[in-house]
Formats: sequence, C-alpha cells, structure tokens
Amino acid sequence: MAITTESIRNGVDTAQLFGTLDAIKAEPSLAKFQFRARNRWIHGSHNRSTIRDFYAAKQEDTSRAEEFVLEAGEPAILIGSDTGPNPAEYLLHALAACLTTALVYVAAARGVHLTEVESTLEGEMDVQGTLGLDDNYRNGFEHIRVSFRVAGDAPEEKLREVVARAQKRSAVFDMVTNGVPVTVDVAIA
Amino acid sequence: MAITTESIRNGVDTAQLFGTLDAIKAEPSLAKFQFRARNRWIHGSHNRSTIRDFYAAKQEDTSRAEEFVLEAGEPAILIGSDTGPNPAEYLLHALAACLTTALVYVAAARGVHLTEVESTLEGEMDVQGTLGLDDNYRNGFEHIRVSFRVAGDAPEEKLREVVARAQKRSAVFDMVTNGVPVTVDVAIA
Repeated sequence: MAITTESIRNGVDTAQLFGTLDAIKAEPSLAKFQFRARNRWIHGSHNRSTIRDFYAAKQEDTSRAEEFVLEAGEPAILIGSDTGPNPAEYLLHALAACLTTALVYVAAARGVHLTEVESTLEGEMDVQGTLGLDDNYRNGFEHIRVSFRVAGDAPEEKLREVVARAQKRSAVFDMVTNGVPVTVDVAIA
Repeated sequence: MAITTESIRNGVDTAQLFGTLDAIKAEPSLAKFQFRARNRWIHGSHNRSTIRDFYAAKQEDTSRAEEFVLEAGEPAILIGSDTGPNPAEYLLHALAACLTTALVYVAAARGVHLTEVESTLEGEMDVQGTLGLDDNYRNGFEHIRVSFRVAGDAPEEKLREVVARAQKRSAVFDMVTNGVPVTVDVAIA
C-alpha cells in the first residue's frame, strides 16, 4: 500500500520548503543571508546592475549558472531615452514580486491550490520633491496602491487569509512600508 | 559670432533639464506623476511584471515604444529555479539605479563631468523573520550598505558634495530609508 502525498503545490516543492524550515529551526545560523547588486553607470540615466553571488547557509552560494543583468533608465519626460524601467518602477516590481511569491509559498504550505495571481501597483509622486523645487513634497512615492486579483480552490475567506499572511511576511513589503537603515560610503577614484 | 554652451553633459541634456524645472516652477501641477507595474504569477517563485504606461504632466504618457518585461524568481536554496533575481535583489537594484541617476543629473546640473560611477550594494537579512520562525527578526534587510566609487573632473570635495546631494534627492533612497504607506486591496476571482 502506498500513501501518496502531494509535494509540489503551486510549483513549490513543499517537502523542500518544510525541510528548509526544519533545518533552520535546528540550526538558526543557517538563516543569515546577504544579497548583493553591483551597478555601473553607462550614460545619462542609463545604468546597469549585475546580480549573481550571495551568502546563505554559512557559505557563498555558487548555484547560479550566470549573472542577471538589469538595465535602468528614464522616459523622455525625465530626460532619458527609455533604456529600461526607471528606479521607482523597479521598486514597484520588487514589491509586486515579493508579495506574490510570499502569497504562493504561504498557499502551498497551507494546502491551497492557486489558479491565478495578478496585481497592479500604482505609486503617486509629485516630482517637485525629487527635483528640489519644493520641500513640501517628499522625493519618493507619497502612497503605493496594490490591487490583487487571486483565484484558487479555497473559500474566499481562506484566500484572503493567505494574502494577509503573505503581506505580514513579505521581505520587500516590510522594507517599503517600514524603511531600512542605509549606509552610503564613497570612494573618489 | 556664436556663443557655444555645452548642453549635453554626462549624457544629460541640461538645457532640457533646466527647461523642465522652469516649466514646473511656472505650472506646479505638471509635477504630478503616477508610475505603475502589472505583475502576473507564472509558477512557484516565478512571476513577471510588465511596465509601460504612466501619468505625467497632466496626461497619460504614450512615449514608450514597448513595454518592459521583468522576470522574478528565487535561487534553489529559497525553493526556486533562478527564473530571475529575487525581489530583495530587485530592491537593491532600484536603490543603486536611483542614487546613480540622481548623482549623474546633479553632476550635470552643476557642471561636473563624471568619468566613472560604480556601486556595490549589500543587504543583510536573517530569513527566520520572513519564514515566520522567529519574530525577533524583521522580514526584510536589517541594513543595506552602499559603496560608491566615483571619478570625475572636479575636486574630491565637490564630488562628495554631488553624492551627498544625490542621496538627499533620490526618490528610492527616500522610500527605502523612510518607508511609504502601502494599501493592499484584494479581489477574489
């Protein structure tokens, strides 16, 4: 007789997920991570980040076959030539991606099959702040609105609970809503 | 007799930059912007944002020829298959890109020719927070360190002043250090 247990749910290997949680419970020092990005200015508002190595589970991670390359830019109205999304748009993407992944992982852990997760993010900004014209306006978004559309095999209440839990555990949601201490060092070449 | 004035500096059209500042001073309602991202879950930790339209200068902007597509993912150790940088890495890129563009624009406005701008960003995280294992740890980075390397035709003091001014005016630096109010709405399909 075989007992069949579903391991892959929403594309998440729940056996691996629970195994990771158990390993960290047994040895909490595995939980220290450091993520990195390296950026180089190209021209005007065009700059490029490369992302690959990181530190995790007490060692340098070497599992990535190649680096990711991200191009940033500005649209014409902000004196650019659209060489990539602008930095504020990248922040919206980071927030959307993190909330979505948290939602998918939480659903997998709780036995909820998702069929659809979509979101639209809108950030309001008065550029008098960032342009240095009026200090009554902050530099960044005054407010960000996230609108999720979620479908799955669970009752509405359960799906809403999964979204709420994801929001409570998302790394980028935490950073964007609560802020992070940032140190800036400068070497003049 | 022709008077020659340098307009393009560091790849930034300073005539256009100052023209934009003058236009907004004359009509501050031009400064209201809304940026957007749309995200769709693909599978597991793989999700994708598309970015194109935005609101600026009292109208919908239609200048972008095509949409930008950004893929997010997680590495193997976080139960993914590296379909893209992870959301926290995207946040580092957003911060690097914004500080760099602010630096390049400020330098252009102040007559400083830059020859090199590079940065390395490191974010420290204990994943016991985001994994829900220990509430003594926050979900996001505890700290972000930005290390800039800048070269240009100005004295060191002036270059440092440009970096300081960029930090004071960067939209993403403001958001990441001070936080932004975020509203999350959910529609169950």
